Amino acid sequence: MTTPLRLHQLVIDNGLAISPFVWRIRYALAHKGLEVEEVPAGFTDIPKAAGGGFKTVPILEHGDTRISESFDIADYLDRAFPDAPLFATRGERAAAQLFDSFYLWSAMRMAHGFYALDIHNAARAVDRPYYRQSREARFGGPLEEMAAGRDAGLPAFREALQPLRMTLARQPWLAGDAPGYADYIGLGGFLWLAGVASAPPLAAGDPLLGWIDRGRDLYGGLGRDPRQRPLAAPN
Amino acid sequence: MTTPLRLHQLVIDNGLAISPFVWRIRYALAHKGLEVEEVPAGFTDIPKAAGGGFKTVPILEHGDTRISESFDIADYLDRAFPDAPLFATRGERAAAQLFDSFYLWSAMRMAHGFYALDIHNAARAVDRPYYRQSREARFGGPLEEMAAGRDAGLPAFREALQPLRMTLARQPWLAGDAPGYADYIGLGGFLWLAGVASAPPLAAGDPLLGWIDRGRDLYGGLGRDPRQRPLAAPN
Repeated sequence: MTTPLRLHQLVIDNGLAISPFVWRIRYALAHKGLEVEEVPAGFTDIPKAAGGGFKTVPILEHGDTRISESFDIADYLDRAFPDAPLFATRGERAAAQLFDSFYLWSAMRMAHGFYALDIHNAARAVDRPYYRQSREARFGGPLEEMAAGRDAGLPAFREALQPLRMTLARQPWLAGDAPGYADYIGLGGFLWLAGVASAPPLAAGDPLLGWIDRGRDLYGGLGRDPRQRPLAAPN
Repeated sequence: MTTPLRLHQLVIDNGLAISPFVWRIRYALAHKGLEVEEVPAGFTDIPKAAGGGFKTVPILEHGDTRISESFDIADYLDRAFPDAPLFATRGERAAAQLFDSFYLWSAMRMAHGFYALDIHNAARAVDRPYYRQSREARFGGPLEEMAAGRDAGLPAFREALQPLRMTLARQPWLAGDAPGYADYIGLGGFLWLAGVASAPPLAAGDPLLGWIDRGRDLYGGLGRDPRQRPLAAPN
């Protein structure tokens, strides 16, 4: 009998899991064909999740192991379940982390500001005061002010995604011929936005939509949920 | 007796090779311990280089093989000289190209505009009219106008490099524990600027300078030349 895996994750009021870091681990588990019990937590539940002691999700429990930070979890999964490696070499692991840094810094950081008010509004009522206070401290201003810059700022966000389009013009997946951890990082960003966006982040016809659609279809439609919102205006 | 390797490269008036794409191949050759004959070309010589038919450098000649585009050359080197691979897996290759796209798009593209006038002024006199005409058409304005935005624009360039700093805070090289192709891509950008910059692109004390210094020291000081200009103001 195998030891069960439990994944603690962040949910909003409608029960959707939204954390981009959780999404990459959901994909990583599916990539390896592993079953997992998903344990929901609101923003203010996270400090108590998995017995306490963690500040962020995802948190993976496996027997006596409790581990957070998505790259550390991915490493653990590769050690505990070596088939279908997420990182076949140390170099692949380093390169995925380098991509992650560029992706978050040059693109998703902008989206975070534009959609933080949507995240607030979608959160459980009990979590909203904490979310507002912590994010306004981080951004240095009201969530409403960040959201007000969205329409003017979305073109720069879309332009910052150009390296993804350049890559996907050469090959079907960010990781190459088959989906890999870089895709799960990339898709995680868009599935986070799909959980909350009151206005679509991408323009109609964006060539990224083809990759996002194929990514959502992976592993039995892992990235699809009827509660999600559109990532682009209809054509 | 081994078949000699010849690398066609771009030089400016003082004889320095500056192309960032040539730099990564110089490092790739040194990574594999290969000797190479370097063949200089000014901007307007490139169409005649290596027997003609190429628009860009680097061009590698090896026996009857003539090949351009830095990633294709790297692949060729890995096939012809499998020791000390640049890409140990297809995934490492795809990830290096994804990093390259983000690096050029989010950071080095900005520097290109700021330093195009310096490249023009450093080019051989015979190459300057071609350089000015082709780059002004690409940028949609005079080189002087692009250069005038430099002082106001450099802070955004430096901020765009933050993912490199984040990565190098975790590990000594972009590629991980040892220098690899991601480092050669990264260093190539700075060695290009070091060939021409009339004002330093980085601030004094930038933590990137430690990595750049270590990179320039590799392979017997491959990245050092007394004709180069400072990358940062003195502390």
